Amino acid sequence: MGLTYKISATIPYDMCDVNGNVRVPQMMALAMQVSGMQSIEVGMADDVILERFGLVWIISDHTLEITRLPRFLENVVIETEAVSHNRYFCYRNFRIMDVEGNILMAQRTTFMLMDIETRKVQTVINEIVEAFQSEFVKKIIRMSKFKDLEHPTEKEFRVRFYDLDMNGHVNNGKYLEWVYESLSEDFLMNHVPTKIELKYVKEVMPGGLIQTVVELEEVESIISHHEVHSDGDVNAYARMEWRSYKESEGEHEL
Amino acid sequence: MGLTYKISATIPYDMCDVNGNVRVPQMMALAMQVSGMQSIEVGMADDVILERFGLVWIISDHTLEITRLPRFLENVVIETEAVSHNRYFCYRNFRIMDVEGNILMAQRTTFMLMDIETRKVQTVINEIVEAFQSEFVKKIIRMSKFKDLEHPTEKEFRVRFYDLDMNGHVNNGKYLEWVYESLSEDFLMNHVPTKIELKYVKEVMPGGLIQTVVELEEVESIISHHEVHSDGDVNAYARMEWRSYKESEGEHEL
Repeated sequence: MGLTYKISATIPYDMCDVNGNVRVPQMMALAMQVSGMQSIEVGMADDVILERFGLVWIISDHTLEITRLPRFLENVVIETEAVSHNRYFCYRNFRIMDVEGNILMAQRTTFMLMDIETRKVQTVINEIVEAFQSEFVKKIIRMSKFKDLEHPTEKEFRVRFYDLDMNGHVNNGKYLEWVYESLSEDFLMNHVPTKIELKYVKEVMPGGLIQTVVELEEVESIISHHEVHSDGDVNAYARMEWRSYKESEGEHEL
Repeated sequence: MGLTYKISATIPYDMCDVNGNVRVPQMMALAMQVSGMQSIEVGMADDVILERFGLVWIISDHTLEITRLPRFLENVVIETEAVSHNRYFCYRNFRIMDVEGNILMAQRTTFMLMDIETRKVQTVINEIVEAFQSEFVKKIIRMSKFKDLEHPTEKEFRVRFYDLDMNGHVNNGKYLEWVYESLSEDFLMNHVPTKIELKYVKEVMPGGLIQTVVELEEVESIISHHEVHSDGDVNAYARMEWRSYKESEGEHEL
């Protein structure tokens, strides 16, 4: 159990898709901001960690379970907790809740600390994790293996100037956007995700093109398997589980 | 002189480009939100206009003059005024000011009212413009003519699912993003705009591809001339004036 931190928010127009549901990549970006706010509160803001230790946070993976997507103008609480860490990995949970406290989205994100000079991952520094009252655990949480794609469909995207953040890196949230965009508009209009697993492997470089490849599988539920490629390398893997959007009640009431 | 309305804002990380300057398309989107907030305050919110008159606002064009781009974490005031209108056009001014009241960006946007059923532009309704104390003027403000492009460079973009807003339309702000993206990363890293003129001609349809074409001209200043195309039609024209970014003092101090 680590320190928790939460904010209240109302879902604005700009964060919603055509169906009036929150856009998951933007919801995740907001969740990351909330963790940044907690870091400031406990005196371990990103610039402090950079100045004192020469380190920056990088994200290894996200696992997100979705009961229901928050909707346009809905009031939600976004809560985060720096739960635990081991030698290299720091695990942080996020919960998006409705006004009655029901959990709409539950996310676990794995962070690592990277040396800004050598670009290499460093072992966790006690002073940092203690500020968040994060618990030391031996266990490393492993994601289930990503499937080899057999007959994937490919789409190509240009990396846009505005896909870069202020540090000149492709913003973390963009990868999930590319994953979404690899699916057809028709599919996205008629399905909502129930689970998302995303693993970052290698940073996409600014400029140039990326390819997203996707393969759909329909077993008990619909599963989409994704890879983001550039320059012949895999940059990210993702797996998403979906349910039909029409089954859902009330989500059209806007 | 119409009613004015203003908000204070701090420029967040997400609104900044690689140089730590505000991203103009996002600044314009925020300005539009401020005008929406004024509409709510005077009792003429978009949903009221839709329900009572069957009308929606559409944007015809923007003219934006930029003294200096707001920077990361800078506190600004965003002020809007529904200045004047004639039979078809409503003119609204925006001013982005620094803490000392200096005008950083001055924008004029021309709005029109469209019938939601017939999709045709309607004459201005007095009850609406009176709520904003907008002044009737006979004069129609005309933009200077956009140049015919002789040797343009072309880039192609996919219209993304997330380029659509909740109404299923390509968000107005996307056109300026595409205009920016038609220029090279190198150019965008080393130049900032001083003036932007953007005229919407025809809506880009969801799905499919758009082409942005651009031609650079260097006379006394650097001017870029742009068109956004899709399906053989011109969707928007733009002209931007630029200055070298390295000349500017202090903008790297982040």
